[in-house]
Formats: sequence, structure tokens, C-alpha cells
Amino acid sequence: MSLATLDATQHPYLPAASATLFGAKAAKKLSFEQIAQHIGRNEVAAAAIFYGQAKASTEDIQKLAGLLDIPKPHLEEQLSGFPDRGRSVEMPPREPLIYRLYEIVQNYGYAYKAVLNEKFGDGIMSAISFSTKVEKEVDADGHPWAVITLRGKW
Amino acid sequence: MSLATLDATQHPYLPAASATLFGAKAAKKLSFEQIAQHIGRNEVAAAAIFYGQAKASTEDIQKLAGLLDIPKPHLEEQLSGFPDRGRSVEMPPREPLIYRLYEIVQNYGYAYKAVLNEKFGDGIMSAISFSTKVEKEVDADGHPWAVITLRGKW
Amino acid sequence: MSLATLDATQHPYLPAASATLFGAKAAKKLSFEQIAQHIGRNEVAAAAIFYGQAKASTEDIQKLAGLLDIPKPHLEEQLSGFPDRGRSVEMPPREPLIYRLYEIVQNYGYAYKAVLNEKFGDGIMSAISFSTKVEKEVDADGHPWAVITLRGKW
Amino acid sequence: MSLATLDATQHPYLPAASATLFGAKAAKKLSFEQIAQHIGRNEVAAAAIFYGQAKASTEDIQKLAGLLDIPKPHLEEQLSGFPDRGRSVEMPPREPLIYRLYEIVQNYGYAYKAVLNEKFGDGIMSAISFSTKVEKEVDADGHPWAVITLRGKW
Amino acid sequence: MSLATLDATQHPYLPAASATLFGAKAAKKLSFEQIAQHIGRNEVAAAAIFYGQAKASTEDIQKLAGLLDIPKPHLEEQLSGFPDRGRSVEMPPREPLIYRLYEIVQNYGYAYKAVLNEKFGDGIMSAISFSTKVEKEVDADGHPWAVITLRGKW
Amino acid sequence: MSLATLDATQHPYLPAASATLFGAKAAKKLSFEQIAQHIGRNEVAAAAIFYGQAKASTEDIQKLAGLLDIPKPHLEEQLSGFPDRGRSVEMPPREPLIYRLYEIVQNYGYAYKAVLNEKFGDGIMSAISFSTKVEKEVDADGHPWAVITLRGKW
Amino acid sequence: MSLATLDATQHPYLPAASATLFGAKAAKKLSFEQIAQHIGRNEVAAAAIFYGQAKASTEDIQKLAGLLDIPKPHLEEQLSGFPDRGRSVEMPPREPLIYRLYEIVQNYGYAYKAVLNEKFGDGIMSAISFSTKVEKEVDADGHPWAVITLRGKW
Amino acid sequence: MSLATLDATQHPYLPAASATLFGAKAAKKLSFEQIAQHIGRNEVAAAAIFYGQAKASTEDIQKLAGLLDIPKPHLEEQLSGFPDRGRSVEMPPREPLIYRLYEIVQNYGYAYKAVLNEKFGDGIMSAISFSTKVEKEVDADGHPWAVITLRGKW
Amino acid sequence: MSLATLDATQHPYLPAASATLFGAKAAKKLSFEQIAQHIGRNEVAAAAIFYGQAKASTEDIQKLAGLLDIPKPHLEEQLSGFPDRGRSVEMPPREPLIYRLYEIVQNYGYAYKAVLNEKFGDGIMSAISFSTKVEKEVDADGHPWAVITLRGKW
Amino acid sequence: MSLATLDATQHPYLPAASATLFGAKAAKKLSFEQIAQHIGRNEVAAAAIFYGQAKASTEDIQKLAGLLDIPKPHLEEQLSGFPDRGRSVEMPPREPLIYRLYEIVQNYGYAYKAVLNEKFGDGIMSAISFSTKVEKEVDADGHPWAVITLRGKW
Repeated sequence: MSLATLDATQHPYLPAASATLFGAKAAKKLSFEQIAQHIGRNEVAAAAIFYGQAKASTEDIQKLAGLLDIPKPHLEEQLSGFPDRGRSVEMPPREPLIYRLYEIVQNYGYAYKAVLNEKFGDGIMSAISFSTKVEKEVDADGHPWAVITLRGKW
Repeated sequence: MSLATLDATQHPYLPAASATLFGAKAAKKLSFEQIAQHIGRNEVAAAAIFYGQAKASTEDIQKLAGLLDIPKPHLEEQLSGFPDRGRSVEMPPREPLIYRLYEIVQNYGYAYKAVLNEKFGDGIMSAISFSTKVEKEVDADGHPWAVITLRGKW
Repeated sequence: MSLATLDATQHPYLPAASATLFGAKAAKKLSFEQIAQHIGRNEVAAAAIFYGQAKASTEDIQKLAGLLDIPKPHLEEQLSGFPDRGRSVEMPPREPLIYRLYEIVQNYGYAYKAVLNEKFGDGIMSAISFSTKVEKEVDADGHPWAVITLRGKW
Repeated sequence: MSLATLDATQHPYLPAASATLFGAKAAKKLSFEQIAQHIGRNEVAAAAIFYGQAKASTEDIQKLAGLLDIPKPHLEEQLSGFPDRGRSVEMPPREPLIYRLYEIVQNYGYAYKAVLNEKFGDGIMSAISFSTKVEKEVDADGHPWAVITLRGKW
Repeated sequence: MSLATLDATQHPYLPAASATLFGAKAAKKLSFEQIAQHIGRNEVAAAAIFYGQAKASTEDIQKLAGLLDIPKPHLEEQLSGFPDRGRSVEMPPREPLIYRLYEIVQNYGYAYKAVLNEKFGDGIMSAISFSTKVEKEVDADGHPWAVITLRGKW
Repeated sequence: MSLATLDATQHPYLPAASATLFGAKAAKKLSFEQIAQHIGRNEVAAAAIFYGQAKASTEDIQKLAGLLDIPKPHLEEQLSGFPDRGRSVEMPPREPLIYRLYEIVQNYGYAYKAVLNEKFGDGIMSAISFSTKVEKEVDADGHPWAVITLRGKW
Repeated sequence: MSLATLDATQHPYLPAASATLFGAKAAKKLSFEQIAQHIGRNEVAAAAIFYGQAKASTEDIQKLAGLLDIPKPHLEEQLSGFPDRGRSVEMPPREPLIYRLYEIVQNYGYAYKAVLNEKFGDGIMSAISFSTKVEKEVDADGHPWAVITLRGKW
Repeated sequence: MSLATLDATQHPYLPAASATLFGAKAAKKLSFEQIAQHIGRNEVAAAAIFYGQAKASTEDIQKLAGLLDIPKPHLEEQLSGFPDRGRSVEMPPREPLIYRLYEIVQNYGYAYKAVLNEKFGDGIMSAISFSTKVEKEVDADGHPWAVITLRGKW
Repeated sequence: MSLATLDATQHPYLPAASATLFGAKAAKKLSFEQIAQHIGRNEVAAAAIFYGQAKASTEDIQKLAGLLDIPKPHLEEQLSGFPDRGRSVEMPPREPLIYRLYEIVQNYGYAYKAVLNEKFGDGIMSAISFSTKVEKEVDADGHPWAVITLRGKW
Repeated sequence: MSLATLDATQHPYLPAASATLFGAKAAKKLSFEQIAQHIGRNEVAAAAIFYGQAKASTEDIQKLAGLLDIPKPHLEEQLSGFPDRGRSVEMPPREPLIYRLYEIVQNYGYAYKAVLNEKFGDGIMSAISFSTKVEKEVDADGHPWAVITLRGKW
């Protein structure tokens, strides 16, 4: 099984912590599933920390430092601030996998809005009081399906 | 309860069918939940037909014509072609509700990619062999949460 | 005193309600201060309804119809849906007054973020659970100052 | 409590002074509230100096050098010129917290203009003869609200 | 079987001939395969005439007028000029089917260039002295595959 | 015969593997035809690996390391992750050869869609379950023609 | 001598007053010099009213209505609101004469800033408390030179 | 008095000469007024040389080298070519002072064109056979006003 | 031989004169060569008048009115103002023929600059004191070559 | 006479060969006229090689290496691949001289198309089977004129 890695030459605007974390992940040959289990978060949230998109708690930092053999003060320093979100994906996304998600928003955006407004009234689904997860299903023919769930406060 | 409507001056590039369908929906005072139930599709798919983002089957057309009191030949003519998708949402979306979904892609795009690649290998989640639904949850404190599920073939 | 009007040729993407409301406002020669007082909302919220940026409640519609001599069913029909926000200002704004607000975000954005994060922790100030108002102050030298207050849930 | 930091790899176009100041702030573990108090400015103005968006006076430089243990001549040299504003936030902002402010301009821009014009006549609110502050309120339910005040000469 | 149609409200910048031709095609219930056969061109070339992307010869006009029951002088007038190409697809394409082709260029562009340059030397494949066709293949499992061939002079 | 090379100053966002592979290719003076033959893939697929657009299998890595005299662990490390596609070509492409392909999509996009939809029904040609090849033909007058074939699952 | 006119098909987003004023100007065959003299403003300010970029005072409206034979109530209605500036020139300007001014800003922007900052300290030249004029000079060789003066409050 | 400086991290695309010249200017603590006087050019032209927007004559180079204590051969080498103009200001300008000039073009562009065309006939004001200067005026109330004059050949 | 025509639905921003002139040209079945001969200008200049890119002199108007059977006062009115240039081609051009010219500028721009600067010193080739023509050459093999000459004052 | 040079900080995306060639040209104090004469190409073609826009033949490399005293193997290595065109000029060009050429395309694009189509039929002028040159003319008044000739296969 291949593991997700970070080629820093392709992502010059990610925080310094991303290089530290992905470097250690590659050295330790750990998947996000293993990392997530270890820090007690779901996989997407764990990966979001790696990409500088989520704030790591003091506890997360301690567990990550331990699991990944990164000196804790070093990791603390790199993760002590607040995430400067929005620097990983350039929009429109050129990466095909990410583009498919973008396309879903482009195509279904108003359909979601219409249904959500009728169900909840005027307002929005928060992207901040928000959690998301990825699951794998296999259908009767043995084909895998990816299931992404978005759950946000209204 | 308010119903989703279409103000055609705000969407000059939607297909002619959108105006027909939304006009009839407003006249009949029907929600997408009611329409979806009638045509046996989920709400988002029903709304997607209204916005020209999904192909209506012959059966859909017949049921919609009946429910909405639209002359069937007229609806058939307007819905007979293939959807010319991507004309409802301008990107980046200026509508706040839709922007939140866009922001989720922007912030979590690479986290999704990393987790999906580790779970499924190289590839993408299809946005075409794809279904999606919207659900409402209410938490212990009585706060509503919107749950959007995306399910696509790998 | 001049009143704010709407030149529809300059705003082809505003909802039909905007033309109705501004047309009646001009005919009645009413300021937003007077309108706001009548419907019991602050001025910016009142103006936001006129530009299609806020949802008018049933009560708002009734009061606006009365004050502006618009047939209530007509206004109800035009305002019955959900606001399709984001269609009034093109970004970056070319209008100088609006550009100054844009410039404040451009220049002070990260300063606000730094101070807000230190005061509130990670998160955002909501632009939805949100109110705003405009006030006029006159300094010792008789110069007017505009004061805009933004108040959003964390 | 976490403190706002600067990850220079994410902001390659900020002035050299930003790295100096944020580096010292992190080493001294000072919040903008403490810094602001020390230099006698409000917090946003203090943070704006750190991001190169406001001119530091001779007095500011002296106080900052003292508080942050930066050799004064070094800081003087880096802050001696005039701010080259507008290099911290890329527009549209990808950072969610900053985007919410941008969205407020996008949605309420013409509402502000209409109300301001009716209150003050033709003109603009200056973004230069201008001050701004951030305050924290807690409502009856214990929820925090952020209040941002913009005050500009007409 | 559904036929490709043109919803003119979605394509306001196509030439007048496009509306004429697609209108007649819908009325006659003809596929591009049938039209292509009739005028002795391949299907893509036939469709390209409908979208204003290829010049119709005098012979094409005569045959199209006959097949589609369009008064020949009317069609001649609309097709007499030179194609003003590039007005059908907005780039990047928002239509998912067309986006996939765009994505192929985005992803494989330099791979094509490297292989073509090594095979042909410095130069380009002409997009003008050029023909293209679409074919359908069905694999052993009964799945359809689309095959698009591009052939251009070096 | 000249060989395709990579001038890294022109492509700062390609993965580190691209520099490694192109450097070795130049040193060994190998064409993509030779490389493709050696690893048992077609030339475009081979070049796509060099540009970070396709995933190299364990077997590809072994063969490439052998052919190009690159230490296998080094290549494994650089190619172990998942391709971060879309970083080689900036859109619209400025390179004339690649622009011609872009132009074909721009001009024929809707013609392809119309013909594909009539042949296959609603849907898309996959750009992922996809293969492509380049061939050279010489016509009766001795002029070379480039033939590019795109084959994608419907 | 030719007179400046307005071809409304080229400027669909100008206010309705622009068409009224330019139509009357053409019918009366008046230059902006004559109009400016009549209303006691400089020519650029007069033209700015025609393009919807400056607020006409009650006195301006009265004089313009008289000079141009436009029914005063009609002009009052069209000019009663506040200018919605920024809708005449699309940026970057495609009109060569206007582009030259844009180019001056592009080329000399930082030179102006450096000189202005050294002369006036930190701040800006207002574009609102601002006047401008155009003059014609003829040099010794009989060549005409255009002189544009910008005067803004610091 | 503060002097204009150059923070090279904010202007990575300026020519090497800009860093040399601004570095020496800061070390010598010279204003552009002093530099301009020394080389016998106006201040804006002097600053334009520093930003790579104007060609320095052999005489300019000699005088600048002398005044600023830069080895003449070094300065000659850096200034020997032709200015590669347009690399200092990104458009639209984010710097507020420069934006105000941009806004003047955006708002008054067609007013200038109308007046210039009526005064000079068809044509343009050259931005190349062109000179410009900045002056300071103080009004009766002691307020400073900036006056920028643009003079270009017709 | 086909003649160049104007499909007004494709060019909504051209001046009203363009529709008048092209309509008459099509009715009279005249080529630009014939029109140019009649008015004593070269073909490109004649076509430029038709596209609103060049000012027609009083004499041009008289001759065009005569040749094309357009009532002279009508044409005078439509052509009396000053050209509002830059509204015919959207940049980057999507039309392949025009794109090729754009590509020449993109590829050879700096080569032209280097050679022109060395030949003429610092400065520009005017695009206003400028003439251009198109000629046809046939080479020894009978292949046609287009020759475009640009001649501008330095 | 000044010579064209390359300031590499202004052109970070040009190939490595550009720096090598321009560096040697500056050291040898050679004009493109002299270089062109030496390698037997016209000046624009010679400059195009320097900017990475044209392929140098084996003979060109040998002659350039000799003339410019560059070790031949070094130059061979840097020029052995195929030009990656389009990286020298950013569009729209900010450089005034290059912008004028861009403006000619923007203003005359459709006039060229109309005349070329009438002269040659449907098709394009190749930008690849193409040559171009720059000449200097001096008119009766002693004013220099630049003449650029574009010659492309139809």
C-alpha cells in the first residue's frame, strides 16, 4: 500500500509544520488511519492538521510528537499559532480528485441551497462548526465507493 | 414555511426548463420534498433537474408534468436534450451558503485526497456515478445540523 | 436631501423585488431611515432587503407593502423565496465607497485575525449570525465621521 | 492561550520587519493585547504594524524595540520607510476568518452605500483617516460575540 | 434515444445559424449520425457546423437545407461568412464532459509535447489542418468506451 | 535527433522526481520511445510519469531505476506517494503545441459532447479510466501527420 | 470638429441618465467645453456627470435641462440618486487613450508614492476631495501636448 | 522626516539596480528631492530610475554613482540595458496610495477621453513622450494638497 | 468567394455602425478589397472602420454611404463620434486566426523589444501613428503565404 | 549605443540558456545585429533563441559558442531540448513596447481576420511556419519608423 506524502517543491506555501509532519510520517511509514487512531481523531481531521488546515490541540501535539518521533518543543513551536487556512488548494483545483469535489459544488450548489433552505429556513451550514469523514463501501459487484459525509451546524 | 423559488433575472443562463419548472412549483406551492416523493427521487436530485444539472428520464417528465400541471409535450421539448451542466453556480460562488461548500473543498481538498488515496489507491471519486443527499439532525441542545452525504464510485 | 435610488440598467442581476422596492421608495420619497423606523429594523438591514441580501419576514413584507403602497400579494410573490445573496457587489468593487471597505479587509485582514484569534481562540466571526449598523459622529471641529459596527457570533 | 505567530513560508511578500517582530513576539510570548498596552495603541493598530500595514512612529519603534528586545537600530532600519500596504491578504481571501469580512462587504456593500449616502451625502468613508478596534462581548447564554468597529472620516 | 438540442438561453453568443439548425434538427428528430451521413461528413464535423465552429461548403448548405427543410437562401445567408470560432465553450469549461477533455490537456500536455517533439522534431500538430472523430467500443465486460481520434498535420 | 529535456527553472512546481528522471534521461541519452519499450508502457504514459502525472508501479520504479542508473531507494522515495496532478501545464497553456490541444477542446468541445451524448446517452468519457497514445503517419505527399488517440470509459 | 457621443450598445451598464444626456448633446451639437461653460464647471467634471461619475447638484440639473432641452423633472428623476461610480471603464482598459493613463499608473505608481511620501509623509492623495482638468499646450514646433492636472487633498 | 526605502522581499521582480540604488539611498539618507536636484531631473523621473521604469543616461549614471558612492562600473553594468517596464506595480494595485490613482483612471477615463477627443481630435496622449511632476500646495486652512501633472504629446 | 460578414449576436458590444455597415456590405456583396479601393484606403483600415476601430473621415462617410446605399445622415450620426476602441476582440482571443497573432506577440515580444531597442534606443513603436496592411504571396510550390506589415512611428 | 541585456531577477522562468547567452552577449558587447550576421539568421530569430522561443540548430549552437566564447558542450546541454515557448511575456504584457503590439492585435484582430478570410478563404496564418523581421525607415522629416513584417503560411 502506498502512503500519502508531501513533495514540498509542489507546495511552497504550506506551513513549515507540514514538511516536518509529512517527513516523519514517511520515515515511520504510517498511514493517516494509524495516525488518526493514535490521536483519537478521524482521518480527515488528522490529515487536515498535516496540511495546516486544522488547529492541533496541546494533546494532539504531544501524541503526534510521540508517535512520529519529533522533538516536542519543535513541533509545539511550529504548531503553536493559529492555522492560516486556505493555502493548500488553488482554486479552481487542478488536481483531478479535488476537482471532482469542486465540480459537485459547481453543479449541485443551488440544488443543495434549495433543499437546505426548505428544510432549515434561511441561513447556512457552517464550515467551521463542522466535521467530515470518509468511508469506503463495496457494492454487490465488488466495486468500491467512496462516501464523504459533511456535517455542519445550521 | 418558505419555498425555494427562481428569480430568472438573477439566473439568465439557466435553461428554459428551469423557469417553467420553478414557475409551476411556486404556483402549486410545492416543496422539493413533496416533488421528490412524487417522482421517487431524493430531494437534491429533484432540485438538480430544476436547475438543469441532471437528466430527467421519460418517467420523471411524465410525473413532473402531472404534478405541476405543465403540458407534457412542452416539458418534453424543454427537457429532451442533455443537461448542459455548470451554468447555475459561478465560481468562486458569491452565495454564502454555496461558498461554505466551496470553502470545505478549498480547505480539506488535500486532506480528502490523502485519506482517499490511502484507502483506495490512486484514482478519483466519480462526480458522475454519484449520488448525494441532505439530511437534518437535531442535537441534544435542540440545534439543527445539516448532513450532506456524497457517494461516488471509485 | 438626496435619496438612494436604483438605476436598474446598472444592476441587471438584482432580483425583481429590488426594482419594485426602489421604484416605490423613489415615488414615496422615503429615506432608509424612515423605512427602517417603520419596519422596526436598523437601516442597513432595511437596505439589505432592498438589495436582495436579507430575507424579509412576513411582517416585514406586510409593513413594506403598506408603507410603500405596493400590492401585498405582488411583494409577497417577489420576496417569498430565499435571498440569492452576493449579486449586488462585483468584487473587487469598482464603486469607491464600497472599495474603501474592501480595502480595509485587504489591509487589516490579518491584523483582525491575529487579534480575534488571541481573544477568542481558533474560529471565525460569523457573517450570518451577524448584525451591523451605521452611525454618524461629528467631531470637535464639526467634521462628520462614519462609524460602522459589525457584530458577529464567534 | 495560543498566540498569533507568523509562518514566513506562508507570507513571502511581507516586509522583513514582519519576521523580526513576530519572531520576537513568539520568543517573548506576548499577546497583541500586551504589546498594544505597552505602546499605547489599540490591538488592531499594533498588529497592523507587525503585518506592515501601518507606519510605526519613532516612539512606537523605541517601545517595540524595548519590549521585544530587538536592537533599536535594526528595527529602525526595517521600519524607517513607508508601509507598502496591501501585501498581506490575497483577494479574494482564502482564509475563512478573513473571508467572512470580505463576504460582509460583498453582501452589504450597497446597503452601506445607500445608508451612508443618505446620512452624509455623496462621498466616502475614509479608509485612511480611519481607526478600528475589536471587542469581545458575551451574551446572556454565555456565547462570545466579536464586535468590530470601523470609524472613518467622511 | 435522446437527441442533442440547443437551449439558446444558455448560449447567447452562438451565431444565429446555430438556433436555426438546432431548431430544425429537433423538429425533424434527426441525430448527428443521420445528418453526417446525409452530408457526407463525420459526425463531429457536422456538429461543429451546428455550433459555428466549421465552415459549411456550398454543398453542405444545400444538403442541410434539404434535409432539415430550411429555406436555402435563409441558411445561405446565415452561413455565408467565415466561422467566428471559440464562442461555444467558455474556458475553463464548466460542463463536466468537456472539462474531462480539458483535464486531459492539463495533465498530459507536456507528455504529449515531449513525445511529439521526439517523434517529429520541433513544431506543432495543427489544429486547423485537422480532423477528428468519435467512435464507440464495447469491451469484453460489455462496458462502453469512447474513443476520440485527433489527426493533425505536423 | 533531439531529446525532450526538462529545464527545472521553467517548472519550479514539478515534483522532485521529475528533475531526477529527466536528468538521468539526458545523461543516458534515451528517448521516451526507448524508455517506454523498456518499461512496457506506451510513450505518453512513460512521459506522464516523468512529469508527475501518472503513478509509477513498483515494477515501473524498478525498471526505471535500472535503465536510468538511479539508486532504487532514492527513486522509490520520490515516487512512493500519489501523483499530485495538474502542476505541469498552466491554463490557458502558453506553449504553442499544448495550446493547439486546448484550442481543439475550446472549438470542438460542444461538438464532442453532442456526438458523445447521442452515441452513449448522458454521462462523460472518463479522464481517469483512460489511455492515450501518439502515432505518426506520413501521407502520400510525404507530409507527417500526428495522430492522438484518447480512449476513456463511459 | 467632431463631438464626443455615446453609443449605448457599447456601454450597457451606464445609468439611464447617460443616454439622455448624450442624446441631447448630440442633438444640440454641443461640446463639453460649451456645456462646462454653461454650468460653470470644468470640462472633465461636466463629462463625468454625463458618464455617471459625479453627482449633479440641483443647480447643475437645472442648467443642463435648460441648455439641453430635457424636461427638468425627467432629468431630476434620473440624476436624483447618488452616482454608482466605476461602471464606465473596464479594467484593464481596452481603449487605447484610457490605457495610456492606466499605463502611467502602472509604470510610475511607486515613483509617485515614493515622492509623495517623502513630501507629505505617510498617507494618500484623495481621489474624492479631488479636482482634475485637461489643458492644451502647443510647443515651439507647433505640436500639441495634452496636460492633465490631478489635485487631491492629502 | 522619513525617506522612501525598498524592502526587496516585497518586490522580488524589480531589477538588480533597484536594490543597489535604494540601498545606497538609505545609507546616504538622501531624499528623492536631493537626488533629483543633483542629477538635474524632476523627482518622479529620479524615482522612476530607481524603480527600473526609466532609462538612465550615461550622465545620470555618472552622477548617481558619485552621489551615492556606488562604483560606477557596477552601476553601469546594472543600468546599461533598456528598462523592462511594468514590473513594479501589480494591477489592480493593492497599495492604497497607488490605488487612488488607478481609481481616478477607472472613474474619469471616459470623461478624459471625451474632453481630449473634442480638444485634440482622434488620437491619444502619449505615455512615452511624456513628463510628470508632483507638487505640494497648502490651502488657506493650512491643509496640504498634492498636485500631479501629466504632460504628454498628442 | 465568401465574404466577411458580421453575426451581431456574437458581437453585442460593437457600435451600432458595425451592424449598419456589415448589413449593407452583405446586401451589396462587396469585399473589403472593393470597399477599400472605393474609399481609397487599404483593406485593413477599411475593415477597421467597420469594426469601430478607426475614425471615418467626412470623406470616408460620404463614399461609404454612396457605395453601400446607406442614407448619409444615418451613417454620419452613427460615425460622428470618436471610436471607442478595443471592443471587438476579447483577450486572450478565442478565435484561432486572431490567437495566432496574439501568440506571435506572446512568443516574440521580448525578441522584438530587444531588437527594436538596439536599433532605435529606448522608446516604443506607436500603435497610433501606425499603418498596417495584408498581402498575399504564393511560393514556388504554389502555397499561399500571408504577409502582414506593421509600420509605426518610433 | 546601449545593448539589450537580461536582468535575471525580472525573468525567473526563462530557461537557463537565456542567462548564459545574455551574460556572454553583455561581456562581449555584441548587438543582436552582429550576432544575427554571425549565425546567418535575422535579428528577431537570433533574439528569439536567446529568450528560449526558437530552437537553435546544431550549427547555431556551434556558431554561438564560438562567437560568445561559451564552452560548446555547456551550450549544447542547455539548448539540446525543445523550446518551452511562452514563458517570456506575461499576458496582457505590462511592458509598454510589447503592449503596443498586443494592442494592435486587440484593435485590428477582426479587421485582419476579415481581410485574410476574404483573400485566402477559411483558415489561419501559421505562427509556426512563420518568419518575422524588423526594419528601420526614416521618413522625409527625419523621423524613424519601425516596420515589423510577419509572414506565415496559410
